[in-house]
Amino acid sequence: MILTVTLNAALDTTYDVDRLVPHASHRVREVRHRAGGKGVNVARVLQALGHPAVVTGFAGGPTGGAIHDDLARADLVDALVDLPGESRRTVTVVSAADGDATVFNEPGPHVDAEDWHRFLSRFATLARDAAVVVLSGSLPPGVPADAYAELTRLAAEHGARTIVDAEGEPLRLAVRSRPDVVKPNADELRRTTGRPEPEAGAALLRDAGARAVVASLGAEGMLVVSDQGAWRASPPERVAGNPTGAGDACVAALAVGLRDGLDWPATLREAVALSAAAVLHPAAGGFDDQARRRFLSGVEVRGLDGVGA
Amino acid sequence: MILTVTLNAALDTTYDVDRLVPHASHRVREVRHRAGGKGVNVARVLQALGHPAVVTGFAGGPTGGAIHDDLARADLVDALVDLPGESRRTVTVVSAADGDATVFNEPGPHVDAEDWHRFLSRFATLARDAAVVVLSGSLPPGVPADAYAELTRLAAEHGARTIVDAEGEPLRLAVRSRPDVVKPNADELRRTTGRPEPEAGAALLRDAGARAVVASLGAEGMLVVSDQGAWRASPPERVAGNPTGAGDACVAALAVGLRDGLDWPATLREAVALSAAAVLHPAAGGFDDQARRRFLSGVEVRGLDGVGA
Repeated sequence: MILTVTLNAALDTTYDVDRLVPHASHRVREVRHRAGGKGVNVARVLQALGHPAVVTGFAGGPTGGAIHDDLARADLVDALVDLPGESRRTVTVVSAADGDATVFNEPGPHVDAEDWHRFLSRFATLARDAAVVVLSGSLPPGVPADAYAELTRLAAEHGARTIVDAEGEPLRLAVRSRPDVVKPNADELRRTTGRPEPEAGAALLRDAGARAVVASLGAEGMLVVSDQGAWRASPPERVAGNPTGAGDACVAALAVGLRDGLDWPATLREAVALSAAAVLHPAAGGFDDQARRRFLSGVEVRGLDGVGA
Repeated sequence: MILTVTLNAALDTTYDVDRLVPHASHRVREVRHRAGGKGVNVARVLQALGHPAVVTGFAGGPTGGAIHDDLARADLVDALVDLPGESRRTVTVVSAADGDATVFNEPGPHVDAEDWHRFLSRFATLARDAAVVVLSGSLPPGVPADAYAELTRLAAEHGARTIVDAEGEPLRLAVRSRPDVVKPNADELRRTTGRPEPEAGAALLRDAGARAVVASLGAEGMLVVSDQGAWRASPPERVAGNPTGAGDACVAALAVGLRDGLDWPATLREAVALSAAAVLHPAAGGFDDQARRRFLSGVEVRGLDGVGA
């Protein structure tokens, strides 16, 4: 199975309003709640593709209870570790006037040393059965900055491959543990490495230990730099919609490629098609499967000479 | 005691952000929770003034639990009636860049006929011990539009005086039960009566049954039209700050005036001073007591010949 880790799991709340007007008072037309956080979205995509996934991370308090309830509704295997604090929420305000979304992310509950050790023990047990471990998203307050480095090392000890979708210090520290794939987007890669060009940023993370770097470049597609070589892949058409969750769909495709030993062009083709199909879906963790199938044959993958390897 | 009714009680959540940018993703710096709804704020002001107040209305689910917890922390007498549904939240986003607040109000849980009858029975018991009953704010889905009319009638049967702070249909229906005071603000009065001038709107509500109409006019102060005559009162200075809760502070002053049989000029003086002092306080339900004392002597009250009586 594929294990997805969401240390900062959230209850994603969506507010539909007529139009977002700063400094005004808004009547919320409809409220929707959904278990969220990047790893949860990755697990949703994997499940929809027919691949067994297990969700772990932290959840606590009544908001944590709502997260558990929603995972059960979605039929996802719930291995979240209890936290004494209250799980965070994210609030996304969707304006009916233009369809645009404005997002507010709560920081999340504090995780103390004892919580973290309980998590590590649960993680070690879960990693034993995992072919691939996905480590996604920001770290809640109190979790050590080298959390992803430690989890990558532990996963490798138990024979699991690893994907890290993070940025900044947690990503810089994680690459030292030689994860199989790291997947920042272009902005995250620039912020993490200080290099404006994705190729240069990817090279830096590879030099620091990452076996492969996949940079998602939005409408431009993706770049991979790996031991096997470097490729760029672009979607067959520009898609308009909700870009939240496109990165998580990409990670789901990378996890399947890694588990099944696919080559990079095949993995990138699926990752680009699935990401574009996710943009067409209103909620993160979902995708338009008809569009995905249509896109698959149109993704253009070209090798980059002189980069990577 | 004074009984405050908040049928649509809420957990008021405040998000501090650096700057609100529509369509962007925001890191919330701090999250604060507080039991809210207009009647809860009125009770907070009454308590700070040293007047015993009891809070009733509905609360349910984990969010209702958080409302109960916060009322206990504030030492308010909690007579909220349990609801099977989940209490609503309001989210106020405060931008550090300009101090301005953007508010999102969830609609609230559905109240069915059985819930409403349980509430009526509790209300009748509470009203027996109440000198004044305050009916504040919007009605949750499912509560009959004539809820305030019925509660006004019930309160009178038990010998309690009544103040209705509402607008639209619930206010139009409530005045038929002859409440002692109704307190719309200028906008609510205009929307409810269709009359652009507050004096004309107040006359209409009086004709329909309200014994006194107090219209809060923001920085312009207040207008009262009553059996005893009509007055306008203005604050001694313009105050800048958080206007949320100024109306609730006004209602608290009206409740005390009604209970103690003060004349309108004395009641208005306190209502205007307390409202202005509430604007200086960052949270609804609070006020700057030093400012209130300073303002009291400076409030200007003048009789309006030919209006009311």
